[in-house]
Amino acid sequence: MSPDRPLPQFDDVLDAAARIVPHARVTPVLRSPALDRLAGCELVFKLEGQQRGGAFKFRGACNAVFSLEARAAARGVVTHSSGNHGAALALAARLRGIPCHVVAPEGAVGRKLARIVEQGAMLHRCAPNLAAREAACAQVQAANGAVLVHPYEDPAVIAGQGTVALELLTQAQGLDTLVVPVGGGGLASGTALTLAALAPGVELVLAEPAGADDTRRSLERGERCTVEPDTLCDGLRAMLGEPNFRILAAHRPPVLAVEDVATVAAMRLLLGEAQVLAEPSSAIALAAVLSRPARFAGRRVGVVLSGGNADPDRLPWSRP
Amino acid sequence: MSPDRPLPQFDDVLDAAARIVPHARVTPVLRSPALDRLAGCELVFKLEGQQRGGAFKFRGACNAVFSLEARAAARGVVTHSSGNHGAALALAARLRGIPCHVVAPEGAVGRKLARIVEQGAMLHRCAPNLAAREAACAQVQAANGAVLVHPYEDPAVIAGQGTVALELLTQAQGLDTLVVPVGGGGLASGTALTLAALAPGVELVLAEPAGADDTRRSLERGERCTVEPDTLCDGLRAMLGEPNFRILAAHRPPVLAVEDVATVAAMRLLLGEAQVLAEPSSAIALAAVLSRPARFAGRRVGVVLSGGNADPDRLPWSRP
Repeated sequence: MSPDRPLPQFDDVLDAAARIVPHARVTPVLRSPALDRLAGCELVFKLEGQQRGGAFKFRGACNAVFSLEARAAARGVVTHSSGNHGAALALAARLRGIPCHVVAPEGAVGRKLARIVEQGAMLHRCAPNLAAREAACAQVQAANGAVLVHPYEDPAVIAGQGTVALELLTQAQGLDTLVVPVGGGGLASGTALTLAALAPGVELVLAEPAGADDTRRSLERGERCTVEPDTLCDGLRAMLGEPNFRILAAHRPPVLAVEDVATVAAMRLLLGEAQVLAEPSSAIALAAVLSRPARFAGRRVGVVLSGGNADPDRLPWSRP
Repeated sequence: MSPDRPLPQFDDVLDAAARIVPHARVTPVLRSPALDRLAGCELVFKLEGQQRGGAFKFRGACNAVFSLEARAAARGVVTHSSGNHGAALALAARLRGIPCHVVAPEGAVGRKLARIVEQGAMLHRCAPNLAAREAACAQVQAANGAVLVHPYEDPAVIAGQGTVALELLTQAQGLDTLVVPVGGGGLASGTALTLAALAPGVELVLAEPAGADDTRRSLERGERCTVEPDTLCDGLRAMLGEPNFRILAAHRPPVLAVEDVATVAAMRLLLGEAQVLAEPSSAIALAAVLSRPARFAGRRVGVVLSGGNADPDRLPWSRP
């Protein structure tokens, strides 16, 4: 996305909320006294794993797909995410009755590819590197005229992700803090827009893998910088997007780096104490709270559990 | 319980609902389109794993504890369940501020005993057989004057468990069928009272381990009979209680025998598709539906997921 392109605004979040309401679910919130005791604060979990497709990603994808004018939409959409965004875009496209193309690198998880194919999207395989993915995407765009829906830089995607906080603010009053995971920054920047407009007194805190802490570094330095991601949080390996950086740089939320071992422990606690399966890229938000007890003590803390697409056969603490 | 003692009635369920409302949670219901597709019917899950203490058992225990007159209550309560009922009774007693004694056999799971002790109950150990448990209970009753609250035969417990269906009927309209697990029969008989009074058109179906199918046999023969339980559903190993038998014999719900392997598969599906951890004794209700697709095809089926106290470190499909 070009730096000249206008950033999405809170009005776009409101438009997104109206646009997706016929299709998206209002996800439940959950309390857990046992986890409150462990954390020393009041936790309010927003269960985006119960969103259609199993993650918040459907909100942004749905908003992007239903924002398209009819002629553009008819040519279909394309993305190069083989994860939750790919599946979410495939579902949104199916709901609108338009083609969807997903470029997936060799080595992508079969389980995730199956979910994309189930929704009727066309898979295009490519080599497992960013250049190959972008080239394959460009090829699909050229051949079909499909519209690229970037997993986190697309303004309609950012606006759609901002509806998570919009919904949570009506479900849980009196929050002091809202913790969300950050990878490419779609959810983080959408949440920043919503909180700044509706609840400026609620502190936004971002949780980022210590092994993929480009957002923390980028906000510190005042320019986007890259790191070689090394984390089991597969949804958070992306580099912070350009518009996402600009939005976050304007709001400057604190970014807490979380070690994977703490994330796995939080994921296991969520399952054992609250009976909820969260993927590591979501459980990291709870891990951020549990690893800084003094910072959150006595607060009322919203925690966005952004998705639940974990494989019950490969829970990370049961690995040999 | 003596056969002469009057059975609880639906009015007692209504009284229980009023009595426990300040203490118990209204548990959420959950839909899963992915599981609907697998089952070929509409599933409405009642998440009793989100009840206080992690299981529906708190409803009955809370009703029993708060039904006691002040003088009797002051002497405390006692039970010989080391599972969910023991923890639920301990919690209810703590809320009323009265002593609670739990008789636990040698070999009981440390994790479950810890939950009982956390609630401030006194543990009394005994040999791991029914005679020793009953003797230890009688000793505590004699020494302290504590009131025995039987895990499923107590009329106040049965009435309390009937509030699960009462709540679900207000949350989900148009059910054709309601599937609940059966062990000692507290939940099953309480549910029978509620459905018969409020929704006689909703079919009650009981799900029972094939290796502990005393309820199925008892209802077929018209008299209680015992089996040597052989099932991993640890909450369903109890023999059907006497009043529970009488209530169920009057309503004659069908009892579906479910193999443990089907129960484990259903538990895994719940986790992978709906991100919900259910213990085997709860997942059996979904397994009953999935193993009889023709029987449930096209129906709207309530499924009571009665509890979620499973150990994330020992999920049954990951055993060597």
